[in-house]
Amino acid sequence: MQSVGVAVVGAGYWGPNLIRNFHAHADTEVRWICDLSEERLARASLLAPSARTTTDFDDVLGDDSVDGVAIATPAGTHALLALRALEAGKHVLVEKPLARTVEEGRQMVAMADQLGLVLMTDHTFCYTGSVRKIAQLVASGEMGALQYYDSVRINLGLIQSDIDVFWDLAPHDLSILDYILPEGVIPTAVSAQGADPVGVGHPCVGFFSLPLSNGGIAHAHVNWLSPTKVRTTTVGGSKKMLVWDDLRPSQRVSVYDTGVELEPMDDNRRRQVLVSYRTGDMVAPVLDELEALRLVVGEFAASIREDRRPSTDGRAGLRVLEILTAIHESLAAGGSLIPLNLES
Amino acid sequence: MQSVGVAVVGAGYWGPNLIRNFHAHADTEVRWICDLSEERLARASLLAPSARTTTDFDDVLGDDSVDGVAIATPAGTHALLALRALEAGKHVLVEKPLARTVEEGRQMVAMADQLGLVLMTDHTFCYTGSVRKIAQLVASGEMGALQYYDSVRINLGLIQSDIDVFWDLAPHDLSILDYILPEGVIPTAVSAQGADPVGVGHPCVGFFSLPLSNGGIAHAHVNWLSPTKVRTTTVGGSKKMLVWDDLRPSQRVSVYDTGVELEPMDDNRRRQVLVSYRTGDMVAPVLDELEALRLVVGEFAASIREDRRPSTDGRAGLRVLEILTAIHESLAAGGSLIPLNLES
Amino acid sequence: MQSVGVAVVGAGYWGPNLIRNFHAHADTEVRWICDLSEERLARASLLAPSARTTTDFDDVLGDDSVDGVAIATPAGTHALLALRALEAGKHVLVEKPLARTVEEGRQMVAMADQLGLVLMTDHTFCYTGSVRKIAQLVASGEMGALQYYDSVRINLGLIQSDIDVFWDLAPHDLSILDYILPEGVIPTAVSAQGADPVGVGHPCVGFFSLPLSNGGIAHAHVNWLSPTKVRTTTVGGSKKMLVWDDLRPSQRVSVYDTGVELEPMDDNRRRQVLVSYRTGDMVAPVLDELEALRLVVGEFAASIREDRRPSTDGRAGLRVLEILTAIHESLAAGGSLIPLNLES
Amino acid sequence: MQSVGVAVVGAGYWGPNLIRNFHAHADTEVRWICDLSEERLARASLLAPSARTTTDFDDVLGDDSVDGVAIATPAGTHALLALRALEAGKHVLVEKPLARTVEEGRQMVAMADQLGLVLMTDHTFCYTGSVRKIAQLVASGEMGALQYYDSVRINLGLIQSDIDVFWDLAPHDLSILDYILPEGVIPTAVSAQGADPVGVGHPCVGFFSLPLSNGGIAHAHVNWLSPTKVRTTTVGGSKKMLVWDDLRPSQRVSVYDTGVELEPMDDNRRRQVLVSYRTGDMVAPVLDELEALRLVVGEFAASIREDRRPSTDGRAGLRVLEILTAIHESLAAGGSLIPLNLES
Repeated sequence: MQSVGVAVVGAGYWGPNLIRNFHAHADTEVRWICDLSEERLARASLLAPSARTTTDFDDVLGDDSVDGVAIATPAGTHALLALRALEAGKHVLVEKPLARTVEEGRQMVAMADQLGLVLMTDHTFCYTGSVRKIAQLVASGEMGALQYYDSVRINLGLIQSDIDVFWDLAPHDLSILDYILPEGVIPTAVSAQGADPVGVGHPCVGFFSLPLSNGGIAHAHVNWLSPTKVRTTTVGGSKKMLVWDDLRPSQRVSVYDTGVELEPMDDNRRRQVLVSYRTGDMVAPVLDELEALRLVVGEFAASIREDRRPSTDGRAGLRVLEILTAIHESLAAGGSLIPLNLES
Repeated sequence: MQSVGVAVVGAGYWGPNLIRNFHAHADTEVRWICDLSEERLARASLLAPSARTTTDFDDVLGDDSVDGVAIATPAGTHALLALRALEAGKHVLVEKPLARTVEEGRQMVAMADQLGLVLMTDHTFCYTGSVRKIAQLVASGEMGALQYYDSVRINLGLIQSDIDVFWDLAPHDLSILDYILPEGVIPTAVSAQGADPVGVGHPCVGFFSLPLSNGGIAHAHVNWLSPTKVRTTTVGGSKKMLVWDDLRPSQRVSVYDTGVELEPMDDNRRRQVLVSYRTGDMVAPVLDELEALRLVVGEFAASIREDRRPSTDGRAGLRVLEILTAIHESLAAGGSLIPLNLES
Repeated sequence: MQSVGVAVVGAGYWGPNLIRNFHAHADTEVRWICDLSEERLARASLLAPSARTTTDFDDVLGDDSVDGVAIATPAGTHALLALRALEAGKHVLVEKPLARTVEEGRQMVAMADQLGLVLMTDHTFCYTGSVRKIAQLVASGEMGALQYYDSVRINLGLIQSDIDVFWDLAPHDLSILDYILPEGVIPTAVSAQGADPVGVGHPCVGFFSLPLSNGGIAHAHVNWLSPTKVRTTTVGGSKKMLVWDDLRPSQRVSVYDTGVELEPMDDNRRRQVLVSYRTGDMVAPVLDELEALRLVVGEFAASIREDRRPSTDGRAGLRVLEILTAIHESLAAGGSLIPLNLES
Repeated sequence: MQSVGVAVVGAGYWGPNLIRNFHAHADTEVRWICDLSEERLARASLLAPSARTTTDFDDVLGDDSVDGVAIATPAGTHALLALRALEAGKHVLVEKPLARTVEEGRQMVAMADQLGLVLMTDHTFCYTGSVRKIAQLVASGEMGALQYYDSVRINLGLIQSDIDVFWDLAPHDLSILDYILPEGVIPTAVSAQGADPVGVGHPCVGFFSLPLSNGGIAHAHVNWLSPTKVRTTTVGGSKKMLVWDDLRPSQRVSVYDTGVELEPMDDNRRRQVLVSYRTGDMVAPVLDELEALRLVVGEFAASIREDRRPSTDGRAGLRVLEILTAIHESLAAGGSLIPLNLES
C-alpha cells in the first residue's frame, strides 16, 4: 500500500510534533514543510530529512504527491489555509481550534463535504489512553447512562493577553466531552460565569455548565489563579462512575463499580424516595501509553485511505467552536443559559 | 459570674450534641431539655443529669432561670419556636438553617432587634480550627484581596426526598463564605445549574456561582452522586492562596505564598500584559483542634453576657437563606443570574 | 442452639470492647465481668446489663454456666489467669500478647492441648476486612509465591516507659504475617536493629527482617518518632503484588496485576538474565467493613462449639512471642541473625 | 577569569549530560570528547560543537589546555582512567561509583592527595534543591540532633544481571546520607539483609541499617519488585523532622516543627518517663529548581580554581564504596553487623 503524502504547514510550537509523528508513521510520508521563517524550516527539516521545505504555500498545493495538508499555524489563519487546501483537492488536518469563528468553521465543513474530502480536527487529548478508555467505557454501556461530567482544570497558569481562560483551557474539556458523549446525547445549552480579579481585561477564572439532552449535566472549572495544579475529571454513570486524574501517572483512571438506583415503590402516597446504593470494587485499568499524536496522524491517514469521516472530524471542531462562542454570549449576558443547536 | 441558664429544644440528632456541650461548658448550665418524645428525653437527660425534662415548651418559657433557648428541632418549626422564645424574653440559638423561608427569617431578626435579644445561628463549621484560621488569614490582610472561593463538596450522598442537594450541602459553603468574606465584600448575585439524572424529583448534582462586589467570584459544586468523597475549598488572594482539604487530617489547610501581579506598563500601545508570578514557601499552620460546638455554646453565652451580636448572628443565617432562595429562583429560571440584596 | 457462656476478666481499656461484642453476638452471653475495681465494674456492666460482676476470679471459675473466659488484664497476669481458667475446664481467649515470656506461652499451649480446650489469642487485626482479604489472596494462589512482606508502622507515638517500640508495635505485624503466610512458608530467622536517640532507655526506632523458608523476606519499620503517621504494608507475590494502606479508607487494599518473571534462556553462556515484566489492571477490592472484634468473639464461640482450633490460636500467639524474644536477642547481639524454630 | 578546560571521557548514557552542562556553563569549556565509538562521538559533538573528539585517551592527557577530566565510562574502568589522568596532572571528576573496589578508590584518593589535584565524585543527587535544603536544615542546627534517617527507594525496577539491588540503588542513599550528616556524626557499622525471591542470582529486595556515632540510626529499603514507585526519605531531628517525597513535585520537602523531649524528673524512683510532645506548623520550603548537574560542573570548576576540596570529593565516593563493601560482607555473614572505619 502506498504511503499517504502529507505537508505540514507551520513549524512553530506544534508543527514539529506533527512532522516527527508523520515521519515516523509507516503509513505517511512528509513531502513538504511550509513556514514563513527559514530558520524554523531549517530546524524542522532535521525531523523529516526527506521532506522539501518552502515558504510558499502554493508549492504545497501544486504538488500532486501531497494527499493531505496538516495546518499548525496561528488560529486566525486556519480557515484561509484550510479552504485553499480543500479547493486544491487536499485532505486537511487542522490543529485546534478549528478556526476563529463559527462562520469560518461552517465554511470549512461545508467545503469538505461538497468536495468529498477529509477534514479532521487535531483534538489530541481524545487520542490519549485515558480518554480512549473512558470513551470505550461509555460507548460499551459499561458506565450505564451518563449522568454528569465534571472537570477541574486549574493551575497557576500562563495568563494570556489575547485570549481568556475559556479560550485557553475549555477547548480541552469540550473536545473530550464531545468525544465521549454517547450516541444521541448532546449538550442543549450552556451558561458561564467568569471573573477577572487580577484586572487583565478578560476572565482568569471561569465556570461553565452544559445541560445534556438526557437530563445529565456537564460542567468545568478553568482557572489561571490556582496555587495547585489540578487535572481531574469525574464522570458519573448510572452503573459505574470514574475519576480521571491526569496528574497521577500510576493511577490515571479509577473506575468505581458504584451506583445509585431508585427502587419502585408500592405505596405511592409516601413522599419517601427509596434509593439503593451499590459499592463494589474499584479498578484502575491499564492504559495504552502510545503517544496520542501518533494515533492522530494514523487516523488522518486511515480516513483518507478508507474515504471515511475521521474520529474527530471538522464537525467535532465546529461543535467546540459553537459552544465556546455560546459561552462568551452567556458571559456577555450575565450568565444566562444560551441554547445550543449543535452541528451534528 | 453566674452561669447562663439554657434550655435545649429538640433532642433528636443534633440536640444531644448541644446538651453535652452546654453541660460541659463552665459558663452555661442546662435547665431544661424539651422534646415531644419521652424516650428521647430519657436518653438525652443522661447527658445533663441536672436538667429537667419536659414535653411542654411553656415549661421552658415560663422559667426565669432560663436565659437562652437552643432550638434543634426540624427546620419547619424553627421560626415558630424562636419567635415564641423571643417574645418570652429569651435569647435564641437556632440550628441551621435559620428557618424555612426568608420571610420567617426576617421576622426572627426583626423581633430579636426590637427586643434587644441575641439571635444566633448555629453555623458550626465556622467554629472549626480550619475555618477560623482561614477567616483570620483573610481578615488580617495576609491573603491580600480575595479573588475567588471555590468549594467541591461531593460524595455518594444520602439522597434526600424532601430537600435537594442545594438545601442539603450548600448551607455549609454559604455560611463559611459569609464568615470569611472580608469587611465590605459581598455577593451581588447568584446563578445555579442543577441536574436530576437519577429521577428523584429534584437536583442531585448542582453548581452555583456568586459574583462578588470586589470583582472576585465564589463557586461551589455540590453532588450526591460522586464515587469519591471530596471536601476541598480553594481560596485565592492577591497575596496568598490556600487550599483547605477537610479530609486530610494531617494537613487540612495549606497556605501558598503564591501570587500573580500585573506590572505597570510604560508602553500602552502594546497589547501584551506583563504579569509577574511569585512562588514561595507553603505553610500548613497548626490548627486549633477544639470541638467546634464547644466554641458555639461559648459564643452564645458570651454574647448574652456581653449584650452584643454573636459571631454568626441571625443576619448571617438570614443571608444564607436569601442566597438559597435565590439559587432556587435561578434554577427555576434556567440558570439566570439573580441579583442579591443581602441583609447586612 | 445454646449460647456460649463467657466471662470477661479485666474491664480497663480493651475489656469493654470485648463485653460489648460478646453481649451483642447472637451466639454468646456474658455471665460475669471480673475486675479488681468496683468502679470499672459499674461502668462495664452498663454494656452487658444481664451479666453479674465480681472482684473474685473464683466466682467465675466456679460457675458451670461459664464456658469460656476472655482475659483482658495487663500482660503480666495473662499466664496465671489463663492457666487457672484452663485448669477449671474453661476455654480461654487472651488479649495479645499471649503472655510475657515464651516459657509462659508454652505452658498455656501445653495445658490447653492436654485438656482439649480452646486457647485463642485475640489478634484483632487479623479479623479486619483488609487482612482477611490479603490472606485470602495469598491462600487462593492468586498472588503466586510470596516474595516479600514489608510494613511501615510509624508515627509520633506515645513513647512508653515499660516497653520498647518493638513490644508496642511489632506484635501487629508479626500476628498479621503469621496469619497471611501460606501453608508451609515460615520465618527461619530474625535480625533487628534499633535506636534510642531520645534517651528513653530502650529503642524508639526499630527495624527487623525475617528471612522466609521459601527464599522470600519479611521486614518492618516501627517508629515512635515519625512526623507523619504511616500504616502501609506491601506484599509482593510472583503473580500479583499489593499495597495495604490502612489510613486510606477509600482504597485500603490495592492489588496490582504486576509481576516479574525470569525467562528460560537457550544460551546458558550469556550472563544476561532475561526478565519479563507484566503490568495489568489494579483492583481495589471492596472490603468487608464488619467490626473485627465481632468476628473474634464469633470465632471463639464457633471453635468452642465445633471443638476445633480457632483461627488465631494459642500457637499463633506463642509464635509472635518467640519472634519478639528473638528480636531482643538479636538487638542484644548487635543485630545478629537469630535462628527461629517456631512452634507449629 | 579564564575558563576551566575540560575533557569528557565516555559519551554513552551519562556523558552527554556532562558535556551539555560543561558546554553551557560560563566557567568551563569542553576541549575534548573521548569515546571508543565514533558514532557516539558524532552524536555527542552536537552538544559542544567547539570540542574536538577522539578515540585515543592520550590526546586528552597530552593537551595542556585540559585542566580537568570528567570520567563517565563503565565503573570497571574508572580507576584506571582516573589514575592516568591524575598522573598526567589533570583534575578528575568521576561518575559514581568512584570505582569498583575500595582498594581502587583508596589509590585514587591517595594519588590526588599526593599530587594536590582535585578528585571529585559526581554524586549528582547531592546537588538537587531538595538535598541541599535538607543538608542546610541539618547543618544550621534547625533540625536539632539527627535522630534517624530512613529511605524507601522501591519500584518495579530494571532487574540487572551484573549488579544486585544494593549496588544499583543504595549509592544514592549512601551519598545523600554522607552529604547531610552533620560534622562529627558518622556511621559506625552496617548490617544488611536481602532476598532473591525471583532467582536472579543476587538480591532484588534489600534492607540495611547503619548505627550512627551519636546514637541515631540510618536505614534504607531498596527493592526492584515493588508494584508502586516510592522515593521517600524521612529525617528525624530532635527539634524538627522532615519528609522528602521526590515524586511529589509540588511539595517535595515537608518540614515539621515537631519534636519529642524527655522532661527532667524530680522523682527518680518512678519508672515512668515524662515525655513532652510538640507539634507546630509544617513548612514546605520553596526549592531551588536548578539542574543539579549544572551545580556539579560549577563545583568542579570552582574547586579547581580555588584549589580546594570539592563538596563531594573522592573521600565521599570512597566512603560510599566502603559501606557498599561492608553491606556485602554483612550479607555474606547472614546479616551480621560489620564495623565501619570510614575514610574521613
